[in-house]
Amino acid sequence: MADDGGARTGVGGARVGLEPPDGGAALRELLDGRWREVREHARERLTGELFAPVAGLSVEEHRARVAEQLAALAATEVPAYGFPTAVGGAGDLGASVAAFQMLVCDMSLMVKVGVQWGLFGGAIHALGSDRHHAEYLPRVISLELPGCFAMTETGHGSDVQRLRTTADYDPATGEFTVHTPDEAARKDYIGNAARDGRAAVVFARLRTLGTDHGVHALIVPIRDAEGRPLPGVTLSDCGPKGGLNGVDNGRISFDRVRVPREALLDRYGDVAPDGTYTSPIDNPDRRFFTMLGTLVRGRISVAGGAGTAAEAALAIAVRYAEARRQFEGPSGEVLLLDRRAHQRRLLPRLARSYALHFAQEELVAALHDAETGERPLDEHGRRELESRAAGLKAVATWHALDTLQACREACGGAGYLAENRLTQLRADADVFTTFEGDNVVLLQLLAKALLTKHRDAFGDLDALRMARFAAGQVLEGVVERTAARSLIERLVSAAPGRGDEADLYDRGWQLKLLEDREEHTVTGLARRLRRAGGGDPERAFRVFDDAQDHVLKAARVHVDRVVLEAFVAAIERCAEPVTRKLLERVCDLYVLSVVEEDRAWFLEHERLSGTRAKAVVQAVDDLCRGLRPHARTLVDAFGLPDAWLAAPIALGAEARRQEEQRRNEAADRGAPAPAS
Amino acid sequence: MADDGGARTGVGGARVGLEPPDGGAALRELLDGRWREVREHARERLTGELFAPVAGLSVEEHRARVAEQLAALAATEVPAYGFPTAVGGAGDLGASVAAFQMLVCDMSLMVKVGVQWGLFGGAIHALGSDRHHAEYLPRVISLELPGCFAMTETGHGSDVQRLRTTADYDPATGEFTVHTPDEAARKDYIGNAARDGRAAVVFARLRTLGTDHGVHALIVPIRDAEGRPLPGVTLSDCGPKGGLNGVDNGRISFDRVRVPREALLDRYGDVAPDGTYTSPIDNPDRRFFTMLGTLVRGRISVAGGAGTAAEAALAIAVRYAEARRQFEGPSGEVLLLDRRAHQRRLLPRLARSYALHFAQEELVAALHDAETGERPLDEHGRRELESRAAGLKAVATWHALDTLQACREACGGAGYLAENRLTQLRADADVFTTFEGDNVVLLQLLAKALLTKHRDAFGDLDALRMARFAAGQVLEGVVERTAARSLIERLVSAAPGRGDEADLYDRGWQLKLLEDREEHTVTGLARRLRRAGGGDPERAFRVFDDAQDHVLKAARVHVDRVVLEAFVAAIERCAEPVTRKLLERVCDLYVLSVVEEDRAWFLEHERLSGTRAKAVVQAVDDLCRGLRPHARTLVDAFGLPDAWLAAPIALGAEARRQEEQRRNEAADRGAPAPAS
Repeated sequence: MADDGGARTGVGGARVGLEPPDGGAALRELLDGRWREVREHARERLTGELFAPVAGLSVEEHRARVAEQLAALAATEVPAYGFPTAVGGAGDLGASVAAFQMLVCDMSLMVKVGVQWGLFGGAIHALGSDRHHAEYLPRVISLELPGCFAMTETGHGSDVQRLRTTADYDPATGEFTVHTPDEAARKDYIGNAARDGRAAVVFARLRTLGTDHGVHALIVPIRDAEGRPLPGVTLSDCGPKGGLNGVDNGRISFDRVRVPREALLDRYGDVAPDGTYTSPIDNPDRRFFTMLGTLVRGRISVAGGAGTAAEAALAIAVRYAEARRQFEGPSGEVLLLDRRAHQRRLLPRLARSYALHFAQEELVAALHDAETGERPLDEHGRRELESRAAGLKAVATWHALDTLQACREACGGAGYLAENRLTQLRADADVFTTFEGDNVVLLQLLAKALLTKHRDAFGDLDALRMARFAAGQVLEGVVERTAARSLIERLVSAAPGRGDEADLYDRGWQLKLLEDREEHTVTGLARRLRRAGGGDPERAFRVFDDAQDHVLKAARVHVDRVVLEAFVAAIERCAEPVTRKLLERVCDLYVLSVVEEDRAWFLEHERLSGTRAKAVVQAVDDLCRGLRPHARTLVDAFGLPDAWLAAPIALGAEARRQEEQRRNEAADRGAPAPAS
Repeated sequence: MADDGGARTGVGGARVGLEPPDGGAALRELLDGRWREVREHARERLTGELFAPVAGLSVEEHRARVAEQLAALAATEVPAYGFPTAVGGAGDLGASVAAFQMLVCDMSLMVKVGVQWGLFGGAIHALGSDRHHAEYLPRVISLELPGCFAMTETGHGSDVQRLRTTADYDPATGEFTVHTPDEAARKDYIGNAARDGRAAVVFARLRTLGTDHGVHALIVPIRDAEGRPLPGVTLSDCGPKGGLNGVDNGRISFDRVRVPREALLDRYGDVAPDGTYTSPIDNPDRRFFTMLGTLVRGRISVAGGAGTAAEAALAIAVRYAEARRQFEGPSGEVLLLDRRAHQRRLLPRLARSYALHFAQEELVAALHDAETGERPLDEHGRRELESRAAGLKAVATWHALDTLQACREACGGAGYLAENRLTQLRADADVFTTFEGDNVVLLQLLAKALLTKHRDAFGDLDALRMARFAAGQVLEGVVERTAARSLIERLVSAAPGRGDEADLYDRGWQLKLLEDREEHTVTGLARRLRRAGGGDPERAFRVFDDAQDHVLKAARVHVDRVVLEAFVAAIERCAEPVTRKLLERVCDLYVLSVVEEDRAWFLEHERLSGTRAKAVVQAVDDLCRGLRPHARTLVDAFGLPDAWLAAPIALGAEARRQEEQRRNEAADRGAPAPAS
């Protein structure tokens, strides 16, 4: 009884035997994962005045500070991580994502790093050829060439295929003319555009010899060496934003700007001097999505960055809740974290942060292995990676916002002070839910991939064609396991069947429950969409649109299941037995709070009885109580240094005040007694 | 079929016959309610450069601007609304709350108005005697005396009874000595303290002749005429916050500051020159809660202010969603608001905003009638008003945050630009969930009131005593109807019994469903707490604490029911038949989305079958589609002028761009054709 952490045995045993004997070292090592050295470097180097979070800067002050931090980072090994060794890089993509995720001292810096080395440099790397790499990447790495990723337009954000900037090739001069036809087609929300960028990777419709070959990318200089806009380039400032004001987002318009033929990033499409277009991929849709697919790193990074923000918030809120006392209990004022309502606010979110952390680690590793050739992916695998990145990005960024807000409220008025970081982190992370792909759109993409996973379906991204396609689709073996396949197979097959007798804490039963929900949801969706097949386009659209909630649900439940599998796989990697047991309980809290949240579905579909559903709620309560003594260990294991958390309420201010109060009260024994 | 708005008849009839023939005039009149003239005045007067929302101000610029706006307001009739005619006021409390709610052009101004005339002036009014009114209120109204409401301390926010600032009376000098014993006892987060306040209503423990009489309020000057802190008063700045940076929140410490005996606001407790304490209320707990109760206006105002922020956000997001097109549909790009996923984001929240608007109107009227003596309340009624204010404040402020975020995301990147208001409104409204009473604490208070409503229970506010008390309590007739009693009685008794045959749109059935949920939840909670009765305090605390989720649920479901009743009563006041039908559908959407959200409970407790629960989800979908054509009418009826919304995306920017694009594309027929 003692060693199962009490979660099954109620309050009495809840505090026994779960505290890791190594002070959380094994936990930290597991969370640090494969790129732990990169994380350690970040912890050691990103310190001192320059990287300390500062509140209350004006937009211009903030931009200047972030530019200075970026310059300092340029002198470290960080920028080189993700680039090929041929141009002075380290060829370690995973390291670049891990380093990005650590930049929680200021999320504006995180995003600025992402713009320069992830998006701008990453696009040149992924879409250009060796010639482009040699010419540009060393200067991108050194920050000699600060640049922009100019994809989004004012009129078209999430629907990239409809971008309207044009790049017309003229065989007479051997040049492209890049042009913005009207305001709806200007590049908008572009990081580095308002202040620092000198060049931009511009996404535009490539047109040559009378044919529009769809969206391609070109490198276009936008400012001269003195920072003045080049002729034909109009730059403007997006102005203050809801957060991330250290990033200089701006707008770019081109008035027939001419660039040489070589400006085209030509890996997936090239134009010969005479204007002839060639591409290694014949199908234009497939080419387009292959090009987009190379940019998957951005989404994965965003999911990770949001995850770190949530972890930082939990670290701040848990530390405060272990110091702050409020309202009377049986022996004096009670610590916030000893109250059930407070545990309920923080601990299920902490468990989900753990789960997402492991899922993120797995995704980064898959990306790294694919890109570095350690474990190359075929096209099917590649699409699956992209879908998973889309789904995890949506779930992780929403989780981050939800957690940041819960932590802010859990810290009351103190949480609202900028010095305590939570409001700033929340304001910054807000846009993570809609940039690098709007979350709703990303979940729709994932759902489509789930429906079509057994067949290549490039170009099936619009609603109508998708609906018709899904109508003819036979779905089989919807659930494809993602992590630790054999272990999960074993757990699932050992699980008891449906019904009330299974132990809620049985991992196999939990896995099966989420698998079953996914399978039911996805096949139900396919059946529903089949009704859209053939006939009237208006009706087909209606059927598809009516099913939107179902579409989003299919994607979400898929992510829940994949995340659980990643958690299970992570536990399997942990050798230290007490840590492992602690993780088992955290995993229980993750999965049972997922079930609790969606218990309407499980009830409606008779996967749980009413009694059983109530038992799930009770189990979440029990787990909260059982894990409460370990909350500090769990947040400390994220390894976020005090200098990054920076919040006075997380660094002893509250405890110091209470100590002073206690001394005062002890000295004040002669004070007037209350009226009876 | 045509005239029921199609909600029952599916997609086909959904657009028929609901658009009010008067362009929304009757709807607007109903929403404007009893204080419609005050709202009209605000719309006419709060215009021009001075009241235009401005983004990107520094903290100091923002404070200066708000101070200027406040001075301009001081010259209008607004400050006088809430004060007695004897001192130059209008004696119209409802008008003062209505005017406060309208200040959505800048929520910092809203809060600054609340601090000066609501909290500071309101405390002098409620807790002082005629002498104080005559001496201070004219200068409070004119803003000659800017002041603070100094209640919260760093160490004790929500637990006001434990405040530690002291006010010791000295009969020898006839003075009180106000003192801050240590940092935990300093006044914190105090509006007007950092920059503008000259005096403060300070809550401190009144001690005289060796007895501590608990928390009382005194007027203490804090700055001289030149704005310098007075001797013994230490003022500091809370610094930048997550929002509301136009309000100068600060900290106040007192080092044995002496004030005359007359500084005590003596309505509920006085000290004679010789130090003898007297009070019209003998029981100290009851006295304390009576004093606190007079401050209920603050909570009601906060709920209303948050409500307006949500309404503004919905107006912005709906207008944008009616202009913005994205992704291909059967006939070109589709308007965002024609997509189900988008309707689902906005319309149930719009319905809830309507419901809360009517509940707020009812609460303001009850407060007004009680305070002005038009319909005085006995102590029971007064406690009920306070409980309702607590519950509505919690639900309305959470709703506002949730809606602001949903609207921000629904506007994508454009929603993240400060110029489009949503991020600023959200950042400002954030703290509404924890100030004027932390929402969780307020719901706990409400739940306690629900358990004890048939008996005076002053002083039963701590967990232990409450648990023991509830244990001995017999609960009967838990559900007490709040609005339009006879109408609701009639609807409920005409409703069919439990079971699947009832029409989901039957109002009586809906009312009964929410009543039944409330009764079951509250009586179940009482039963559960009874277990805590007698015996071991540690165990009693545990039982009570374990029930926290149940406590919060009891409060929430009560608010849901009260809000529905207010909606039903409001519809009854609407004479225009088409408007009335439209409102009926909005009310359906409100109540059915409440049921949808909590359908796990209805399933677990066998109030709905699985089939029935799915039908509720379907009905919400149908209602979204049916109400979509009327979304603009519904948000326009809030009557928020364009100048207050200010967001370019809500004021035609998107439509203008699309028009330009269309012209461009029409002129560009000779453009290269896509590759096949």
